[in-house]
Amino acid sequence: MSDHVYKKIELVGSSPKSIEAAVENALVRAKKTVRNMRWFEVTETRGHIQDGKIDHWQVGVTVGFTLED
Amino acid sequence: MSDHVYKKIELVGSSPKSIEAAVENALVRAKKTVRNMRWFEVTETRGHIQDGKIDHWQVGVTVGFTLED
Amino acid sequence: MSDHVYKKIELVGSSPKSIEAAVENALVRAKKTVRNMRWFEVTETRGHIQDGKIDHWQVGVTVGFTLED
Amino acid sequence: MSDHVYKKIELVGSSPKSIEAAVENALVRAKKTVRNMRWFEVTETRGHIQDGKIDHWQVGVTVGFTLED
Amino acid sequence: MSDHVYKKIELVGSSPKSIEAAVENALVRAKKTVRNMRWFEVTETRGHIQDGKIDHWQVGVTVGFTLED
Amino acid sequence: MSDHVYKKIELVGSSPKSIEAAVENALVRAKKTVRNMRWFEVTETRGHIQDGKIDHWQVGVTVGFTLED
Amino acid sequence: MSDHVYKKIELVGSSPKSIEAAVENALVRAKKTVRNMRWFEVTETRGHIQDGKIDHWQVGVTVGFTLED
Amino acid sequence: MSDHVYKKIELVGSSPKSIEAAVENALVRAKKTVRNMRWFEVTETRGHIQDGKIDHWQVGVTVGFTLED
Amino acid sequence: MSDHVYKKIELVGSSPKSIEAAVENALVRAKKTVRNMRWFEVTETRGHIQDGKIDHWQVGVTVGFTLED
Amino acid sequence: MSDHVYKKIELVGSSPKSIEAAVENALVRAKKTVRNMRWFEVTETRGHIQDGKIDHWQVGVTVGFTLED
Amino acid sequence: MSDHVYKKIELVGSSPKSIEAAVENALVRAKKTVRNMRWFEVTETRGHIQDGKIDHWQVGVTVGFTLED
Amino acid sequence: MSDHVYKKIELVGSSPKSIEAAVENALVRAKKTVRNMRWFEVTETRGHIQDGKIDHWQVGVTVGFTLED
Repeated sequence: MSDHVYKKIELVGSSPKSIEAAVENALVRAKKTVRNMRWFEVTETRGHIQDGKIDHWQVGVTVGFTLED
Repeated sequence: MSDHVYKKIELVGSSPKSIEAAVENALVRAKKTVRNMRWFEVTETRGHIQDGKIDHWQVGVTVGFTLED
Repeated sequence: MSDHVYKKIELVGSSPKSIEAAVENALVRAKKTVRNMRWFEVTETRGHIQDGKIDHWQVGVTVGFTLED
Repeated sequence: MSDHVYKKIELVGSSPKSIEAAVENALVRAKKTVRNMRWFEVTETRGHIQDGKIDHWQVGVTVGFTLED
Repeated sequence: MSDHVYKKIELVGSSPKSIEAAVENALVRAKKTVRNMRWFEVTETRGHIQDGKIDHWQVGVTVGFTLED
Repeated sequence: MSDHVYKKIELVGSSPKSIEAAVENALVRAKKTVRNMRWFEVTETRGHIQDGKIDHWQVGVTVGFTLED
Repeated sequence: MSDHVYKKIELVGSSPKSIEAAVENALVRAKKTVRNMRWFEVTETRGHIQDGKIDHWQVGVTVGFTLED
Repeated sequence: MSDHVYKKIELVGSSPKSIEAAVENALVRAKKTVRNMRWFEVTETRGHIQDGKIDHWQVGVTVGFTLED
Repeated sequence: MSDHVYKKIELVGSSPKSIEAAVENALVRAKKTVRNMRWFEVTETRGHIQDGKIDHWQVGVTVGFTLED
Repeated sequence: MSDHVYKKIELVGSSPKSIEAAVENALVRAKKTVRNMRWFEVTETRGHIQDGKIDHWQVGVTVGFTLED
Repeated sequence: MSDHVYKKIELVGSSPKSIEAAVENALVRAKKTVRNMRWFEVTETRGHIQDGKIDHWQVGVTVGFTLED
Repeated sequence: MSDHVYKKIELVGSSPKSIEAAVENALVRAKKTVRNMRWFEVTETRGHIQDGKIDHWQVGVTVGFTLED
């Protein structure tokens, strides 16, 4: 593990339900093209309002994954 | 939409339940006097502790709304 | 001037043309209800993209004005 | 206290005397129109210079107050 | 309350379930050795990924407690 | 729109003319390979100097685009 | 001095009087259990408001002290 | 170029016209006493308001120049 | 005033007495070589501890002054 | 050079030896797929500890490269 | 690993030799009283100058360790 | 030492070898014109890449020195 190189990508996931679900949705989508995802970090938590209520959350996520040799 | 002007206000919502509920409570209260709320951004996530347990969450929220002409 | 109290409000102005025009649009709208505006500070510079081109700029502006006695 | 909603406003108070007095002056002015102020936070400490000496301090203050139901 | 001195410590709590549960787990552990905890502040929200899914959340928490005389 | 996932990329655009033109140049180049660009955010504004004059602006831009399913 | 190791702790001191007094109160309390304190840094300046006036200042202080061998 | 030492100075340029012009004005003035200016970075974008309109822009600029041997 | 160019310098002033006195001491010293100082901004507030008490305050100050033509 | 567009990517390099070696390892790996790398910036310096000693350094690096036409 | 709680402490290590050695010195000292150290993060890199040369480096390090049950 | 006034200047030093050497090179150059340098702080760590390898490091350094009476 001491010689790994990681790459970080920045995503924004959405969900009408919760912050956690917005992060999960981002990872579900990323999994289609990115392998070896290791960790994530929430960078911003925002959302859209409709008729005075939270319509959906938008959560910025930085995802780190191992670059294979 | 390209000529809208928005105003941002800063609120702190509270809830014994969750971060999401604290944001919702802030919006419910804001809705009484603010129209055309469009988006929000979480600026800080804090809380109070009672007897070693979370008593309630306090979440800072910046809310953006359209200024009507 | 040494005993003035100022209030700051946060606006977002839009313009398809430039950053400067977006700030001006925010001030034009604010002038309708706010008197004695003294200075502003740009807090964020964003924009929307349509068909790969800048559709309009969205510029965050903090405006300071004198509170009259 | 667990279901309160607070609003934050941003002020700049001035005083030729001290940082503390500049904050106090901002609160004295705010009290005329804002009720239920609970806490404040100093966000920036600046000042003007005249003939090489401090003419007056200008201190940015965020003030939080309870929104009544 | 005006003459209290507080100390702040920094913890990282983990949970497979949610951000809130990760904070709670940190407090449960801290309660074993720290008395008079008063408030907390979330400083970072991260997590580990296993097989493309969130394995567990890791949430940084600053906890403030009263130093007794 | 509530279930979209976005990716953000970071570019630096250049222009001898203006900040706006530097952002536009970054987007023109990005459009060749990136579809569905939605918004951008200016992250830094720099430039090079030649003979005491601005030779060209270099503007950092984060661009967000929709990841298609 | 070139081989010293320091530890930093974070305190919050309170005083109805001034920012300086709040820092001093934090150090007076810390001195009971911490030896060899060398320097401090003010990290945040806040306060509580009662009846529209400053009730007491709350000042965050990071204190560095030498770890003895 | 690998053994150059640069010095950075901080200026504030003004212009009634644009952000770009305010930066240029700062460089024009700096050129009178500073040689070998290489790059700049915009650090803050502010301005003064007169009668509800932008009177002039004030732009903070860090300028880097080569220290000659 | 709309065509002035300012330069900013960074100082650290010291005083056993207060934050305000530390800033004043920095300005008194700067006045010997710098003319036309207009404003200052406190950038950090630190201090040294001797025998568990504040020995002196060290306050970082950015000072802006007009560059004459 | 005034019309170049650059892209920035974020990597994390590891090395048991030094900060410099961790950055080099990130670049060695990136070189396999990225051409025209021009500059880098260290964004965070972390590491893992084993038996009370540094096991390896983990250094965050933003790398900028020219996008060819 | 998903239910661990970590505590973070802040140290400053010194060394006349290098940044890496300053971090190592901090860890060597911490190891005397802290068990289960897992990771560290460099928070600031400073140093003292004697006769125009680096006398020693002073490096701020946040160290995370597992709190045992 | 309690009545000293310090000035801070910002330099960028370069070296093909290491971060430490880049700082040293900045100080060697500064020593030619600046007396009584006391401390430094690393503000940014960057570098240039040639053929996929680190060509040289560029390290930002703030240097503090005593202003003599």
